[in-house]
This record gives sequence, structure tokens and C-alpha cells, in this order.
Amino acid sequence: MELTGRRGAEITPEALAAESGISRAKVAAIFPSEADLFDAVTELWFAPHGAIMEEVVDSDLPVNRKFYEFYARRFRHNRDEYRRDPAAFAVLCDLGARRFEQVRSYVDLADHYLCGLIAEAQAEGYFAGLEIDRALTLINQMTIAYTMPDLLIMVDDRLAEDKLAAIIDTIFAGLSASDGGASGLSGLRSA
Amino acid sequence: MELTGRRGAEITPEALAAESGISRAKVAAIFPSEADLFDAVTELWFAPHGAIMEEVVDSDLPVNRKFYEFYARRFRHNRDEYRRDPAAFAVLCDLGARRFEQVRSYVDLADHYLCGLIAEAQAEGYFAGLEIDRALTLINQMTIAYTMPDLLIMVDDRLAEDKLAAIIDTIFAGLSASDGGASGLSGLRSA
Repeated sequence: MELTGRRGAEITPEALAAESGISRAKVAAIFPSEADLFDAVTELWFAPHGAIMEEVVDSDLPVNRKFYEFYARRFRHNRDEYRRDPAAFAVLCDLGARRFEQVRSYVDLADHYLCGLIAEAQAEGYFAGLEIDRALTLINQMTIAYTMPDLLIMVDDRLAEDKLAAIIDTIFAGLSASDGGASGLSGLRSA
Repeated sequence: MELTGRRGAEITPEALAAESGISRAKVAAIFPSEADLFDAVTELWFAPHGAIMEEVVDSDLPVNRKFYEFYARRFRHNRDEYRRDPAAFAVLCDLGARRFEQVRSYVDLADHYLCGLIAEAQAEGYFAGLEIDRALTLINQMTIAYTMPDLLIMVDDRLAEDKLAAIIDTIFAGLSASDGGASGLSGLRSA
């Protein structure tokens, strides 16, 4: 992961051997292909995210607090990484975007945890009438500024924990299956 | 704009002259520098957005319908452009990101129109207690999936008008200055 950031490009097993001083045979035994090396870097990148999500979900916080911490802690972690080395962060983001199929399982894991939190919130009466999958996609879209690392690079200075909290509060106060009429597709609207 | 997409890179005045069959002197008279050419391409890109925003703001739709159309029409326009030629769209996005300072005035224009819509909504009692600038940044973040063209490239298949409508409905139903407690910073919360 360090080498990828430092060299600004994906590292081959050969390059890893050359830079680390470990024999090519030993590197090849652990990472037979470039894809194996990429998978290992991905695992390393997402390990703190997995730990954060598990800790939040298993906590005894009220469910709206869980939602906030679910996003805020991963956002802070990403922001720390980004600010520590913006160029390396950008390289790793770019790599993740180009190899998105291999990253997909980690995105699915976050969705899995979020579905659990949505069910918990719905048991308390929030997000009334929404299918879990529908709530999931809407919440994912409304919070994407705080989860997609590419956006951190683009709008870091606009992102802040207090805004994230206001967004979570808005979702808890306003998200439901009822049609508020924005699309104007149901019923007549007066001008 | 066409040439940029076709060649996958920013076009110099010299390249434009060569490809268009117009004399270098004539091209140089209209676009003295690369920056002038970029500005012209940017103006062309954003012209339909400006027209859409103006039309929506000046319409007699209810304010929540205005919000929806403000986003939906620009989103549909971008999606059409993207699907017509994904590679060219990506090149133009990338160019816009790298020359963001020159794009900034168009982003500011969208903010200007949105501030007008926010004031109109607040006059009807929505977004209670929020400063306009605060409502602006929160709404911008909650709708970013539908405004940032880079996200169209990444998650096109997840974006849809009915989801956008649900997000606008959520914002109208839930966005206010009142602290719902997600961040847990004010008052005691029971577990």
C-alpha cells in the first residue's frame, strides 16, 4: 500500500520484491499474481472500515447515533489518510475505481451492516413504509459525499462532521415512503 | 467540445485549426490561448444547464416541484450526454476537474439559483431556522449524486428520477435547524 502511494502506480509482485528486498520467489509464493497483491492491498485499506462498522453496529447507542457514527468514524479515518498523503490517497482511489469489481465485496459488506441499522431504525418507527433495499439506496445516495473517497479529494474543505450530523437528522426526520409530491407524478398540484 | 471527446485530450488552438480546416490565424484570433478555448468549451457545456435553471426558477411550479425539476432536468441532460458517448463525457469531466477554477463560476451560478429556491421554500415554512448558506451546503451534499457528472460515470445504474424525487421529499420533510441528536453533542441521550 505504501509503495503504491509512493510510486503513483499499481505495484507488480516483481516491483514489490525489488523495492522491499524480499526475494522474488518469496513474494511470488505469497502473491502469485498482481490480482492477489491488489486484493491484499484492498484488504488492508478496508480493515479499519470493517472494524469501525462492527463496533458501531454492536454498540448500545441509540439508532440515530449509530447511523452518525457509522459514517463519521469512517469519514474521519479516510480524511486522516487523505490529509497525511493526498497524492498517495488519490492513487489508491484511482486504483480502486479501476478495479472496482474486486472492491465490490467491501461495498456489499457496508450495505449489509447498513441494512441491519435500517431494520433497527424501522423497528422504532423510522423510514415508515420503505422496503429495506429502497431505504438503503436512498440513504447511500444522500450520504455519498461522506463515503466515496474520490469526493473527499474534490470537496474536502466542504465536508464536516456537523454537516453529516444534520444530514442524518434530516434522514431520520424526513425519509419515508410517503410521496411528498416533488416529482409531481401522483395527484394534482396547484401552482 | 466534439474534438476533445474524440481525441481524449484537451485541444490546443493549433490542433483545432488542423482538425477543423480553419486557418491558424483565424482560430488564434478567436481563441488567443488554450485557456480561451477551454472557456468556450465550458460555456458550451453549461449553456443548457443555465437555460434549465432559469426556466425552472421562473416557472409557476410549487417550490418542491421546482427543486425536483432543478435537479432532474440537468441530471437527465447529463445522462443523455453520458450515454451518447461515455468516453467523451469522461474526458470532458476529467478536463473540468483539472481546470476547476475556470468551472467555478458555473458552480457559483447554480448555487445562486438554488439560494433563490431555498429562500422561496423558507417563505413557505420549509428548512425552518436554517441560514440560507447552511441549507445550501447541506442540500448540495445530499443531492451531489445527481449533480456531479463524475458520479454519473461511477454509479449511472443506481441513479433514477424516482430516487431523486424521494430525496427531495426527504429534504422538504426533514431538513431544519433543529438538532435531532445524531451527533450526540447536545443534551443527554439514553441508550
